[in-house]
Amino acid sequence: MPDARTGAYLTQPLHRLIRELPNAIATVDRGRRRTWAQVGDRIARLAGLLIDAGLRPGDRVALLAQNSDLYLDYMLGVWWAGGVLNPVNIRWTVDEIAFSLTDCTTSILIVDDHFSPMIPALRAAAPTLRLILTTGPAAPECVDYESALAAATPVTDRVRNGEDLAAILYTGGTTGRPKGVMLTHRALTASAMSHAGSGECAPGACMMHTAPLFHVGAMAGVIAALLRRSRHVFVPAFEPEAVMGAIQHNGVTDVFLVPTMIQALLDHPRFPDHDLSSIERLIYAASPISPALLDRTVAAMPRAGFVQAYGMTETSAIVTLLGPSDHDPAAYASGRVRSVGRATMSAELRIAAPDGCDMPPGEAGEILVRGESVMTGYWNRPQETADALQAGWMHTGDLGRMDEAGYLYIMDRLKDMILTGGENVYSAEVEAALASHPSVQQCAVVARPDERWGEVVHAVLVIRPGHALDPQALTAHCRQSIAGYKCPRSFEQRTVMPLSAAGKILKATLRDDARRLESGSSSH
Amino acid sequence: MPDARTGAYLTQPLHRLIRELPNAIATVDRGRRRTWAQVGDRIARLAGLLIDAGLRPGDRVALLAQNSDLYLDYMLGVWWAGGVLNPVNIRWTVDEIAFSLTDCTTSILIVDDHFSPMIPALRAAAPTLRLILTTGPAAPECVDYESALAAATPVTDRVRNGEDLAAILYTGGTTGRPKGVMLTHRALTASAMSHAGSGECAPGACMMHTAPLFHVGAMAGVIAALLRRSRHVFVPAFEPEAVMGAIQHNGVTDVFLVPTMIQALLDHPRFPDHDLSSIERLIYAASPISPALLDRTVAAMPRAGFVQAYGMTETSAIVTLLGPSDHDPAAYASGRVRSVGRATMSAELRIAAPDGCDMPPGEAGEILVRGESVMTGYWNRPQETADALQAGWMHTGDLGRMDEAGYLYIMDRLKDMILTGGENVYSAEVEAALASHPSVQQCAVVARPDERWGEVVHAVLVIRPGHALDPQALTAHCRQSIAGYKCPRSFEQRTVMPLSAAGKILKATLRDDARRLESGSSSH
Repeated sequence: MPDARTGAYLTQPLHRLIRELPNAIATVDRGRRRTWAQVGDRIARLAGLLIDAGLRPGDRVALLAQNSDLYLDYMLGVWWAGGVLNPVNIRWTVDEIAFSLTDCTTSILIVDDHFSPMIPALRAAAPTLRLILTTGPAAPECVDYESALAAATPVTDRVRNGEDLAAILYTGGTTGRPKGVMLTHRALTASAMSHAGSGECAPGACMMHTAPLFHVGAMAGVIAALLRRSRHVFVPAFEPEAVMGAIQHNGVTDVFLVPTMIQALLDHPRFPDHDLSSIERLIYAASPISPALLDRTVAAMPRAGFVQAYGMTETSAIVTLLGPSDHDPAAYASGRVRSVGRATMSAELRIAAPDGCDMPPGEAGEILVRGESVMTGYWNRPQETADALQAGWMHTGDLGRMDEAGYLYIMDRLKDMILTGGENVYSAEVEAALASHPSVQQCAVVARPDERWGEVVHAVLVIRPGHALDPQALTAHCRQSIAGYKCPRSFEQRTVMPLSAAGKILKATLRDDARRLESGSSSH
Repeated sequence: MPDARTGAYLTQPLHRLIRELPNAIATVDRGRRRTWAQVGDRIARLAGLLIDAGLRPGDRVALLAQNSDLYLDYMLGVWWAGGVLNPVNIRWTVDEIAFSLTDCTTSILIVDDHFSPMIPALRAAAPTLRLILTTGPAAPECVDYESALAAATPVTDRVRNGEDLAAILYTGGTTGRPKGVMLTHRALTASAMSHAGSGECAPGACMMHTAPLFHVGAMAGVIAALLRRSRHVFVPAFEPEAVMGAIQHNGVTDVFLVPTMIQALLDHPRFPDHDLSSIERLIYAASPISPALLDRTVAAMPRAGFVQAYGMTETSAIVTLLGPSDHDPAAYASGRVRSVGRATMSAELRIAAPDGCDMPPGEAGEILVRGESVMTGYWNRPQETADALQAGWMHTGDLGRMDEAGYLYIMDRLKDMILTGGENVYSAEVEAALASHPSVQQCAVVARPDERWGEVVHAVLVIRPGHALDPQALTAHCRQSIAGYKCPRSFEQRTVMPLSAAGKILKATLRDDARRLESGSSSH
């Protein structure tokens, strides 16, 4: 019998909002505000424009843009037209972008004014492109986005189904060629539903999008906000003063921040001048947060409910949550506040030994995930797909342990683990020890090749203004909490860390640099 | 490319609970308590027993039982074995039960001690049955449930997928032959996730199951409680004093009640003697609640968050929610508290004219539902399935209107609407007017055939002790809030209403009785 049901398609929450709240403010982007009726009209027009340009169901459309309300047009308009998102990582070079466009034969690209100067180079490098739309200055052989939208004929939704592809997100570019992670409408819906609550948010909910929207975490935030009937506030990029101003001005209730962003807000000289008390829910994620930074954040925003999330592109973002009730004094006392929480409603977790068996509670192994939000596979990479999805379980490449109550502790990326003299050292553990020293603003610990030990622990540090790098003091400090073999054997000071667009420290870069160093910049 | 994902299978939350909370109390059934590890062991054994008995994936298993922890064994054990639930409506006669068993060729039946006297008659009436297990006294050719479980070999989960059938629920028995509503694992998961919140409930959550568990609403409550890592408290049947005692004794936090149950609690002489203050969330549903009863309930349990839900078997229960923030003074002032709320995260709603077009806000039409939780169809009923699921939309047969903000107001069942002198009268509106009179304990309004008007409005009433039926006074009272043509033309007093097992007043019975009445028992 054919299945007559239709559901879990990502324009469904938009239909609800157009029906229920046509005149409510949907988006705020600096001075520009649009209602849900206006957003709906733009999306039906963008879909008409894309279909007129030859878009068939399943075809890919790319966007190269800073965060703005254009992102909402793009996500919903492409889905409304039956297309598949292939958003561009804005930190990438022309060659990297061109690879991600041609690898999955993307034929339509939208570029905002900020990135429009890259258009000629992209056109030359990505021969699959048939149409380029831009909000920037008129360029040869480009279509002006706003005039094309105004001239387009609105179309009805090409309603997709849960199992249809919704996005191909390129990831893993820091080592080797990026891979296109294929996520269905249902996978993204399941992930967003798992952390959207019951969708019963009080009137006045307002989510600010600060993390780059080409990243799955921010994208899942947009979908969750749509499910919760929330207003959307966009800031073009993470700039602490603009972010704090937008929170205060719009009464932002929900915000998703990665630890490097939280740190930048707390360290900003004008932090005390802003009223951030409208924040009801602060979700943090994307990399482990050091205990020292978490303590400062909780102290600085006492009214916000803190939610830590863990996940990755391959799982449509979030698979664990550490909720507000796990940030109370008992959770501090038990140390559970250092975990990333427990499996969401749509995720199942296992900690596996190399032979695939379950590890007992408390013991380290690879984190495996199963559930509706797991990717379908890597685009055109059957071997990598088979390696990642063994027996239906996503092999995350992350090392973790699970306590007796199912709380997950991320220990390290498998590839970030340091093997020194036969011992495993988890870089995250060493980083936590270093971060609690008053002189340390940011730190990262990587392996450095060593003839005697195989690898040794190498620390890269940004030192707080007014302090100096003091290897002896740092080593003594680390020895209070971790074993001697885990302490850094060499220290390297930097003024700034190399960061990915998602705010993650690029350890691969640090590792490459460390490999080129002589015997280290200090004590050994 | 094959889809390697596995998810939305209904034993998934059990795996989480066994992993995370093996030693926590999972179920309380009068004096009996079991941990999640014990529940997990019983379920793996029950699945082993069923598979040994020849159960193949997709085969149906029935349960005839009052509410008890046996229901959790049954639901999860059958799913673990790869089977499909076909729970029995406990109000049915042997013939009705036999029809529901043979219609979908159910071969295994479990019967609790309360219903074990029916076994010989059922065996004779339902020849498809190959195996009957019972917790009751030993009966010929029956297997003792507990000894079989103890002797069974635990098996590993036959992990189902979202699109696999999870249950066939027979419904519609009050008019014509019952139809088997087919619900998948994903449909039941989507419905439960939509109202489970984020699954981040605080430790100590405890749900009591009072509504009959063969009914989809109570079943979705069990699934939501599993997703929320809640404890389950079972009471065998709805008995006000036992229910109030169990709430107080177990610190119940979540309870699902239908209006007739709420009324029975409030009217009970020992209501003031019980402390029900542990209740944090009271979900009410299953039939419209009169404004008068809602006001009394809110006054009687001021600390509980009230959630009204609307749905039906064909939508895996809940498709709208009216949350706690919609029970505040503003919602009273606007009248929104009389609505059933807005679409859940997994449901899309339309109000359709007979020609299928959308009705404008505020105007009445048939309620249509689309989404993941909608049924696959009726078992072996292609014509009824095609009628109900047109273009992917479930045609509910309910009449409603939606306000400008998407709040849904249930006006009536299509078949309960009264057509009198060319005017539509919605029985629910007349019932609300009657219910606010102090002499009225319960009421139902149905059509009575009339030569002059086609149909006339007929009221059936249970009068409060100490009052008498006074047609003139009731008519005058109704005229204050509704038009003259909507007021009842005849009144009928009863000591008790005929109720379905789910607590709904059986209007078909009242309608049949009214048809046989002479010109009515009073004023015309």
